[in-house]
Amino acid sequence: MLDINADRLLADLYDLRKIGAFKTGVHRPTLSPDDVLSRHWLVERLTAFGHDAEIDGIANVIGRAPGKGPHILAGSHIETQNEAGWLDGALGVIYALEAARAVAESGAYGEHGVDVIAFADEEGHFADMPGSQSWVGTLSEETIDRAVDRSHGTPLREALAKAGLHGRPRRRMERDRYLCFLEAHIEQGGWLEANDLTIGVVTSIVGSWQYRILIKGQQNHAGTTMMKMRRDAGVAATRLLQAIETEFPKIAAELTVWTAGRITLDPGAPAIVPGGAEILFQFRDADSAVLDRLHAKLEELVKAEDATGPCDVGLEVVSITHPALMDGSLRAAFTEAAERICPDRHKLMPSGAGHDARTLAPHIPSGMLFVPSINGVSHHWSENTSDADIVAGARVFAGAVGDLLAAARG
Amino acid sequence: MLDINADRLLADLYDLRKIGAFKTGVHRPTLSPDDVLSRHWLVERLTAFGHDAEIDGIANVIGRAPGKGPHILAGSHIETQNEAGWLDGALGVIYALEAARAVAESGAYGEHGVDVIAFADEEGHFADMPGSQSWVGTLSEETIDRAVDRSHGTPLREALAKAGLHGRPRRRMERDRYLCFLEAHIEQGGWLEANDLTIGVVTSIVGSWQYRILIKGQQNHAGTTMMKMRRDAGVAATRLLQAIETEFPKIAAELTVWTAGRITLDPGAPAIVPGGAEILFQFRDADSAVLDRLHAKLEELVKAEDATGPCDVGLEVVSITHPALMDGSLRAAFTEAAERICPDRHKLMPSGAGHDARTLAPHIPSGMLFVPSINGVSHHWSENTSDADIVAGARVFAGAVGDLLAAARG
Repeated sequence: MLDINADRLLADLYDLRKIGAFKTGVHRPTLSPDDVLSRHWLVERLTAFGHDAEIDGIANVIGRAPGKGPHILAGSHIETQNEAGWLDGALGVIYALEAARAVAESGAYGEHGVDVIAFADEEGHFADMPGSQSWVGTLSEETIDRAVDRSHGTPLREALAKAGLHGRPRRRMERDRYLCFLEAHIEQGGWLEANDLTIGVVTSIVGSWQYRILIKGQQNHAGTTMMKMRRDAGVAATRLLQAIETEFPKIAAELTVWTAGRITLDPGAPAIVPGGAEILFQFRDADSAVLDRLHAKLEELVKAEDATGPCDVGLEVVSITHPALMDGSLRAAFTEAAERICPDRHKLMPSGAGHDARTLAPHIPSGMLFVPSINGVSHHWSENTSDADIVAGARVFAGAVGDLLAAARG
Repeated sequence: MLDINADRLLADLYDLRKIGAFKTGVHRPTLSPDDVLSRHWLVERLTAFGHDAEIDGIANVIGRAPGKGPHILAGSHIETQNEAGWLDGALGVIYALEAARAVAESGAYGEHGVDVIAFADEEGHFADMPGSQSWVGTLSEETIDRAVDRSHGTPLREALAKAGLHGRPRRRMERDRYLCFLEAHIEQGGWLEANDLTIGVVTSIVGSWQYRILIKGQQNHAGTTMMKMRRDAGVAATRLLQAIETEFPKIAAELTVWTAGRITLDPGAPAIVPGGAEILFQFRDADSAVLDRLHAKLEELVKAEDATGPCDVGLEVVSITHPALMDGSLRAAFTEAAERICPDRHKLMPSGAGHDARTLAPHIPSGMLFVPSINGVSHHWSENTSDADIVAGARVFAGAVGDLLAAARG
């Protein structure tokens, strides 16, 4: 069974953590000087044990194993949200690096190895997962032309040029080269910790449906407009949201989530009856049937509030992502490895957050593994995972890699 | 019975409307060049028939009647909200001007006359009714020092100096000079129109209680945080507001109003469970007992939501104004005059909006009269009142003035 060097793994993670250190986390937004530095750092680590590594034209780092394959593609993303956690995607990149090294050192897998990939901008500073989109061929030049950093407005083209990547080719996945794609990540939630588990084997990455609910009433003086003559958009918003809170639990699945993240009243003054309201609303589930029935219920509740009056209520779909099913045999490989490393401390679970594996799943069998986030914290500098869990996760990851490569060798 | 010159009244109103004309309304914010011009215009109109008129150090226009009195003090405010209606307070100023002229011309009231006043900044561009506050002695120099225009930040001191008013004394009300204060105004609501009435005789100016409701939950990832582990401040806000909508109607009086004018979720992003919420909430009624019981109910509902959890809910009082009762004999005087001019088309009603009469009522018997606003519109350039209603209102106003002065003469 393939094992890893735990000290080397932790040393690499702690080394990478120094690049863009912020409090106990890191600040390494996509194509910032520290992000670019971390990509060069990774290229060096990869070439050090014989991989053929490069940064491509969208800033993906690709490290190719020797041997004619087929190989496993493994990795995640290396940049972070602003002032965010030190593990997040970096964990999955270093798991892949360590698994690739362990395979190379073992000499037991013949022509088979692990290609390591660190996708660019999974965190969406510039666009919706442009690195993995580019890799599978769904990122257009026009999207790159239009993309600007959401924090400071720098165009993606300009940031790529500043990083010295202008004119480099964008590498596309050679499908025949690979058996599958494997990604590890911190959970970004508290479910593993709450259930005292070490490993989550991902069944599916949830689909996320986002809406804008628009309510039109009549703006009026809050002192002189009688209650029965009002068309208060805020009251309609409150009533609709309360109806959602009453009805959604009746039809939701166990891990369905829904959120009204923003409510804006227009004009939003203390002494004016709101004439307009906007609600940003979303729900997520791993099961398309559940998503469909939540959508139907939301439409029904919006129509009911519109019909009740006195305000006009409308629903706009902002975006829809479909659930991405993880491959069954890869799930099994992770589960078997987990049972060897940490018996009974692993479970199947959906991913509530999006990951590069969602982009890859329609193109190649994909599998994901989670380790616990302490207190469920993520996207914040205080994010953390215990060293014991980090090492256990790496052993399970490498264990599955070894089993899959051994099976491929036959 | 004292009557007025309807053509002269309308001519003055239409003349004044030209100063700062905006579409069919006017834009004459406090101490803007057009506001200052309108105050000089009024001084001229007042001196033209023998009043001793001036603009004082806070920009109040005071026009003193000849004769040793006691006199009636009458008026309202002359500035407007931004891009607002042409009548609003201007109506009350011109009613006072016309009543004063009619008294002067009639020669029937001996030493008694009408002092005309146009208070500064009832609309609160700089402060809370500084003109009438100054007149009754409750405006400090420190408040003036601190006051800045809410639209463009100009200090009140600077605006007064630019208007040439720096160093002028602020005039205080000589209580012994006056029998009472009378103010006319457009209704700023649709109650008179809805009830097919011409005159509203104000019983009381409502008290307005303003609150900030603060909710503290836990900010989290909207995809990975299970529903049962959430402390969603937005959900708590919605539930509390819905409870208010259910409970308030049970204990409110006929004309009680309540409004949640602003709901702010923190951080207000589509994919983040809100960790905080702030609601600006207010209610108004003319009866202190009703206000007390609404306050008790609000406290009860906030405590209940706080106790239910999972969020902490707190209530902060932002400001309280108490209802200001209009004087009973002045109400009777308006009602008797209205019954002569427009029999059965007048009713007693509270004022849902604040007016200078609220500032004056604790210091001098005060009375108010309303005329209808077409479609209930106010604080918007499309605000209007029919000429017939304007003239009827002026006749009722002058009729009451004549009756009160005749009674004073004995």
